[in-house]
Amino acid sequence: MSATRAGFIGLGKMGRPMALNIHKAGFPLTVANRSQAVVADLASHGATAAATPAEVAAHADLICLCLPMPAHVEEVVLGPNGVIEGIRPGAIVVDFSTIGPSTCRLVAERLKAKGAQYIDAPVSGGTTGAVAGTLTVMVGGDQDAYDRALPLLQSVGRKIVHAGPVGAGAVVKLMNQLLVAINLAGAAEAMVLGTKAGVDPTLLYETIASATGNSFQMARNFPDLILKGKFDPMFSVNLLHKDVALAVDVGREQHVRLLLSALVQQIFAEARDAGHGDEDIAAVIRPLEKLAGTEVRAR
Amino acid sequence: MSATRAGFIGLGKMGRPMALNIHKAGFPLTVANRSQAVVADLASHGATAAATPAEVAAHADLICLCLPMPAHVEEVVLGPNGVIEGIRPGAIVVDFSTIGPSTCRLVAERLKAKGAQYIDAPVSGGTTGAVAGTLTVMVGGDQDAYDRALPLLQSVGRKIVHAGPVGAGAVVKLMNQLLVAINLAGAAEAMVLGTKAGVDPTLLYETIASATGNSFQMARNFPDLILKGKFDPMFSVNLLHKDVALAVDVGREQHVRLLLSALVQQIFAEARDAGHGDEDIAAVIRPLEKLAGTEVRAR
Amino acid sequence: MSATRAGFIGLGKMGRPMALNIHKAGFPLTVANRSQAVVADLASHGATAAATPAEVAAHADLICLCLPMPAHVEEVVLGPNGVIEGIRPGAIVVDFSTIGPSTCRLVAERLKAKGAQYIDAPVSGGTTGAVAGTLTVMVGGDQDAYDRALPLLQSVGRKIVHAGPVGAGAVVKLMNQLLVAINLAGAAEAMVLGTKAGVDPTLLYETIASATGNSFQMARNFPDLILKGKFDPMFSVNLLHKDVALAVDVGREQHVRLLLSALVQQIFAEARDAGHGDEDIAAVIRPLEKLAGTEVRAR
Amino acid sequence: MSATRAGFIGLGKMGRPMALNIHKAGFPLTVANRSQAVVADLASHGATAAATPAEVAAHADLICLCLPMPAHVEEVVLGPNGVIEGIRPGAIVVDFSTIGPSTCRLVAERLKAKGAQYIDAPVSGGTTGAVAGTLTVMVGGDQDAYDRALPLLQSVGRKIVHAGPVGAGAVVKLMNQLLVAINLAGAAEAMVLGTKAGVDPTLLYETIASATGNSFQMARNFPDLILKGKFDPMFSVNLLHKDVALAVDVGREQHVRLLLSALVQQIFAEARDAGHGDEDIAAVIRPLEKLAGTEVRAR
Repeated sequence: MSATRAGFIGLGKMGRPMALNIHKAGFPLTVANRSQAVVADLASHGATAAATPAEVAAHADLICLCLPMPAHVEEVVLGPNGVIEGIRPGAIVVDFSTIGPSTCRLVAERLKAKGAQYIDAPVSGGTTGAVAGTLTVMVGGDQDAYDRALPLLQSVGRKIVHAGPVGAGAVVKLMNQLLVAINLAGAAEAMVLGTKAGVDPTLLYETIASATGNSFQMARNFPDLILKGKFDPMFSVNLLHKDVALAVDVGREQHVRLLLSALVQQIFAEARDAGHGDEDIAAVIRPLEKLAGTEVRAR
Repeated sequence: MSATRAGFIGLGKMGRPMALNIHKAGFPLTVANRSQAVVADLASHGATAAATPAEVAAHADLICLCLPMPAHVEEVVLGPNGVIEGIRPGAIVVDFSTIGPSTCRLVAERLKAKGAQYIDAPVSGGTTGAVAGTLTVMVGGDQDAYDRALPLLQSVGRKIVHAGPVGAGAVVKLMNQLLVAINLAGAAEAMVLGTKAGVDPTLLYETIASATGNSFQMARNFPDLILKGKFDPMFSVNLLHKDVALAVDVGREQHVRLLLSALVQQIFAEARDAGHGDEDIAAVIRPLEKLAGTEVRAR
Repeated sequence: MSATRAGFIGLGKMGRPMALNIHKAGFPLTVANRSQAVVADLASHGATAAATPAEVAAHADLICLCLPMPAHVEEVVLGPNGVIEGIRPGAIVVDFSTIGPSTCRLVAERLKAKGAQYIDAPVSGGTTGAVAGTLTVMVGGDQDAYDRALPLLQSVGRKIVHAGPVGAGAVVKLMNQLLVAINLAGAAEAMVLGTKAGVDPTLLYETIASATGNSFQMARNFPDLILKGKFDPMFSVNLLHKDVALAVDVGREQHVRLLLSALVQQIFAEARDAGHGDEDIAAVIRPLEKLAGTEVRAR
Repeated sequence: MSATRAGFIGLGKMGRPMALNIHKAGFPLTVANRSQAVVADLASHGATAAATPAEVAAHADLICLCLPMPAHVEEVVLGPNGVIEGIRPGAIVVDFSTIGPSTCRLVAERLKAKGAQYIDAPVSGGTTGAVAGTLTVMVGGDQDAYDRALPLLQSVGRKIVHAGPVGAGAVVKLMNQLLVAINLAGAAEAMVLGTKAGVDPTLLYETIASATGNSFQMARNFPDLILKGKFDPMFSVNLLHKDVALAVDVGREQHVRLLLSALVQQIFAEARDAGHGDEDIAAVIRPLEKLAGTEVRAR
């Protein structure tokens, strides 16, 4: 059993299996969560339940977060009963949440005043990767903090990338998400048009997938989801829209004009506003199908 | 040696090696081209030189075209001394050019009046694939014409897809090109932003390339071209801009709203107007780099 | 009565009142139209009915056209029984249609071979201006042709602008239409957002209309149409979409990157595809209202 | 002389003349500003100089703000030595700054806890209107606060609009600014294209300005600025970019898809990144001119 004690706040679809993998790897684990059911569940696996983020922080060397929005991270770390109230000098906040680099730097600055450190460590790989412990982890933070957190990171991920100082992990993750959105929305547009123009959607998909227009998102979204008319959420339109919005915010902060990115943000907003926010990102194609009067389904 | 006689008009970067492969496969070959040097060259390999498209048509059962723009196809087939003046009943025009489906249908209609047929057969795979005979060929046309042309198509390509009636090959090719443009321009945007935000470009590329934001165009354009600052044309900005414009025209004909496609057409226009029209498509990143004041180069 | 004889082909919503004004101004008038009812109607007012465009051309010094699309102009002038078959040396085609400058130049070139001239003379001012004879006419063509056509132009319009050589009138008209589309679609976006954010639509309209965000299209579309929920066609979404598409084509020909223009073309395509193509251009706001779940109506 | 005492914080290009007009109208005036020179100047006109926002607040019934960015408002009101530290129950913060409605509501909420009120009162009309006291003022806030502030508002503006509760004034102002940006950038695009296509820019401007494509921004930007090649800042690209970004943020908060707005934000970012951030908003045309290789100047 590791001497390093871990904490985990945010036991959602991603956080719960990640926390379990950390626990299985031998890290003593204290957890907290807004909903208490999952806390009890983790406790039944041997974790210690805490009432507040501050209490988690008081009992951990590495305090992991996995929260949906920047505002949640700010609240859980800096708010009342937040991590910052319990954290001890030398501890490290390991933030698996996908948030913007400016929030990362703000939180890191505040923790530094307590003698603690912060690394942003957003992940890629979905719930499947979270369960299997095969996530890609993109890390921003000081080298020594990275080194100390590495064994824990390796318990949740297979590929761990140290991208640079605080915020760099967030930037890499957000740039990846931008391309998820662009490649997917682009494929949706081309597949709807090709189908409306009379080509069989499966043939169209297979030809492009074997040619120069291929992308990871083609394979993820068409054969098993769109072509079958399945839009059950693995990763929702709302969550990707949030990521894209954060990426576009990076462009605003960095003074970089973003054309496709700004537009794709609105395309996911369209899918959300048309009622598909809680469906899988594949559903971004649905407003396009409706407008074109054609469906991209296997025949 | 095949009894089927072939003709080839348009002996450019793609057409010349394709014509050679057809000849090597045993098809007696008659050729014509605007520039005569390459005609003489082909003749030295055993092809028969013709003075006009009409003359090529008079000596061939399968008349291949590989021309840059729809206007060239219209001129070579329907113009003075065009294919239509020499073509014989039962012959087939095999059009490897990337043009729009409406031009395909127009030309097919006119040839039908002469008792001849037309198949659109645009290719993917670049000059490398043209030389190696490993192109992907996307075919639109009647089944019997497709069947008769298949042996010739197999002499230039490895994957031959019969996509549907006349124009369907063009649609598949154009949809692929749309995604080439969107995936590449999207990657350019994200890579410029991530680099400006302080992440090492090579690390950024490698992380995204192994994650869910990956695309064929990432691998094609970053390691060997953009990260090394090389923009020598394999496939030029001008040609991809043309393809995207044709794809957007399909959207206009089919009454399909196209957001990312319409924008990416203008992004390639920007690269062209900034002086990069004859450079490789990777150069679409250069106006973005200039505006952001950062270059996405390996360090 | 003028010695100059006029012809008029295309007696639609705009053409009919324009032809009547030309007739009232004293020009002997020969007319033709696809639908014969309106020809009979004009004949009852004293015009001479002709069976074909060629026949109109044979009896006129100034042959006016007012047709919906470039393809109609090509067909009526260059097609079978077209103007070009009847036109005499020295005659002038006065084209009130809104078409692209490249079509203007093509037609002018062909007429020149017959010793005839062409001026593009698209109009602005709607059916109200057409009836009142108060249109703005934007003219492209040689000075002498312009001078000879001027009295006729003055019978249909109040402001006649000689914009330059053949095609220049078309360019001015299309640039105006581009701004009609952008200013209107922009206003629609801002009014929907402001209304969704809780501001009374009438107050919002009146404040912007008296401030720096005002445009001609604000006044045209909000008080009498959108705020009252009226979308009866005065000028339809389909027609403006056509104009914008032609303007974007000018950008392609001229190698000018167009961002807002390319996007607004798709926004009008969206309105058309959502079923509002035959409604007034004000209906461009309807898909935005539906998506936002709010209506910009006076309360 | 009014019994109501005024305070003013933020004596920039707009704030200084507005403060002078309030003073001239008879309101006893206490002022503060980051730069002290202008404070001394106002003092020489009879105003009382204060060292901090808190001190201004302690001496005023109506505390006016005119600050560039939301962060400045938050700092001046809520930060150390901020207005909130000195404000007394019953006082009203009158915020002339152009900021987002969410910041307005946040600040209002915090002031309410002190028994004070907040109205957002952004203005339109530029420095000319600020000097002349003829601004348009768009007000959000409770009716009683509006009523009490009205005499002061009338000393700076001619048209005072009560748009609704706190934040409504901000929404109206931002929607207006969105249309300033869209109408101007649209006009820039059309004028560059028309000029490149060969039409004289002055003729093109004058024709559109008298037709249906006209907008307030046409008249503001072309005759005196762009056509003369003058880009001296009256209202800068940077400031309008900020306003548009805030308007697009309203879209994000309200769940309204924004296509033209999102794009025009990037078009102003382009002008900024190309080095025109401190020039007048008319300079948004300059990157377009450069790319097209043509200038829209009177000949």
